[in-house]
Amino acid sequence: MGLLIVGSIGLDDIETPFDKVQNALGGSTTYISLAASYFTGPIEIVGIVGDDFPKEHMKMLEDHNVDLEGLEIVEGAKTFRYGCKYHYDLNVRDSLYTHLNVFEKFNPQLPDKSKKSSYIILGNIAPKLQLSVLDQLQNPKFVVCDTMNFWINGAMEDLLKVLKRVNVLIINDSEARLLSNEPNLIKAAHKISKMGPEYLIIKKGEHGALLFGAETVFSAPAYPMENIFDPTGAGDAFAGGFTGYLHKNRDFSFDNLKRAVVYGSIMASFCVEKFSTKGLENLSPLEIRNRFIEFRELSSFS
Amino acid sequence: MGLLIVGSIGLDDIETPFDKVQNALGGSTTYISLAASYFTGPIEIVGIVGDDFPKEHMKMLEDHNVDLEGLEIVEGAKTFRYGCKYHYDLNVRDSLYTHLNVFEKFNPQLPDKSKKSSYIILGNIAPKLQLSVLDQLQNPKFVVCDTMNFWINGAMEDLLKVLKRVNVLIINDSEARLLSNEPNLIKAAHKISKMGPEYLIIKKGEHGALLFGAETVFSAPAYPMENIFDPTGAGDAFAGGFTGYLHKNRDFSFDNLKRAVVYGSIMASFCVEKFSTKGLENLSPLEIRNRFIEFRELSSFS
Repeated sequence: MGLLIVGSIGLDDIETPFDKVQNALGGSTTYISLAASYFTGPIEIVGIVGDDFPKEHMKMLEDHNVDLEGLEIVEGAKTFRYGCKYHYDLNVRDSLYTHLNVFEKFNPQLPDKSKKSSYIILGNIAPKLQLSVLDQLQNPKFVVCDTMNFWINGAMEDLLKVLKRVNVLIINDSEARLLSNEPNLIKAAHKISKMGPEYLIIKKGEHGALLFGAETVFSAPAYPMENIFDPTGAGDAFAGGFTGYLHKNRDFSFDNLKRAVVYGSIMASFCVEKFSTKGLENLSPLEIRNRFIEFRELSSFS
Repeated sequence: MGLLIVGSIGLDDIETPFDKVQNALGGSTTYISLAASYFTGPIEIVGIVGDDFPKEHMKMLEDHNVDLEGLEIVEGAKTFRYGCKYHYDLNVRDSLYTHLNVFEKFNPQLPDKSKKSSYIILGNIAPKLQLSVLDQLQNPKFVVCDTMNFWINGAMEDLLKVLKRVNVLIINDSEARLLSNEPNLIKAAHKISKMGPEYLIIKKGEHGALLFGAETVFSAPAYPMENIFDPTGAGDAFAGGFTGYLHKNRDFSFDNLKRAVVYGSIMASFCVEKFSTKGLENLSPLEIRNRFIEFRELSSFS
């Protein structure tokens, strides 16, 4: 059975200190799908776009074994659009505009075959929609969930319901502090674990990622990157690499979850090396394997 | 031959959200010496205090195999005093006062036997004084150096002279960015390496530490700490653990430098568990060894 991904699909205008792109492929579903496609397939997506959504993007996704049956194309409507500009140090971005367009009416309807999915990634969308997806699933076994400050601040009640039904929550350090109201990340993790998720992953950007299980912690390093061209989608690429790897081998031991976190970090590192989704479009298994070895050399000692 | 340490010795008033202490033992030399003492000895220190410096502190240091021949005690003068208050999240502290007292006239004079030292830690003092120490040494083989924003901003010319003569520079991430004028830490590290030091260690607090060699990088995790009682001296404890470990086994392979970084991180983690130097005063070899194993479990994957 495939890996189901529900989230946003959009077109982005991105400006960084190095370059800018317009009308580039964006959205959480897109980054997650591409990253996961290097490990498993098919990837089933549920999303919505307008009839302005370029056919070439659909072709590219299909070439990555992404099944578009759940992609609703609304005639006469426009695709979700987002524009942002990154500051010099790339850690801060200003949103220039957010045109929800068709995404405003997004109400995910799973195709019948997707209702049987066991492995699901809930991309960063309204918790109410995440709940609707969970309600349509007949037998979810492994649910990975993303969220953000906007929903923590504005839809906490629904978010708490979601957290009770997910296996893994993936958020960044500032989101973890906000969600738990606790500055110490280790204490924050323990508080969040009590909200429901079996595992918690806290992404820390240039500082790597932490994986928390019931009684144990894993600290993954960040790949040492001199040239980050576009941070957009890094977190989604992480979720895609992490879950794609687990979907392939179905091994939920903590040792294998550690490896999955490293594969997530690897896909995030490839993602930020190029603009938009370009860094995830043409990777070879050897490149991914070699970067795994680099990650191991980076952090191993005895 | 012993390990030579030159830096500050003082008395601190420290307030954190959890508690406060007054008149507690402080200063870079103190933390470095205690941390190093668990790996090697004797520790020879060069420093200055007033006649108000409590005898009990000298006794405690001597019990840790610290040789006080180079400690100048100025009659009728007062010891360096520092007061600070940490904010709720412990990442920010306000300096309440700095009374240099005898430290204002500190002009390190090495005892004859210390002039023959091969292993030296230059604690965070004026680069001019660090240069004076280097000039007195007959045959320095391995020099580890600390500095801070204050000297980067105010004594850059002297600092650059120091950097050409040290083997390892240990600074934190904000200092690395300031020294290199470069926000990307990896680029910052390459710039700083060109200033002279053979190895660079960038401490990142709750995010661990990075060790940079000529062509290679090591990323050490941070120990997951829920209860940090007093961050004072953590960086000095790191330097002491790192250099003490190397002084003991004299193995400068990159693999052993990695282990030394982990031992530095271990000593920093013990340091912050109690107020002042208390976390470094009564450790057992078994506690240190067990924490090494915990660090390995925290970051290993295959």
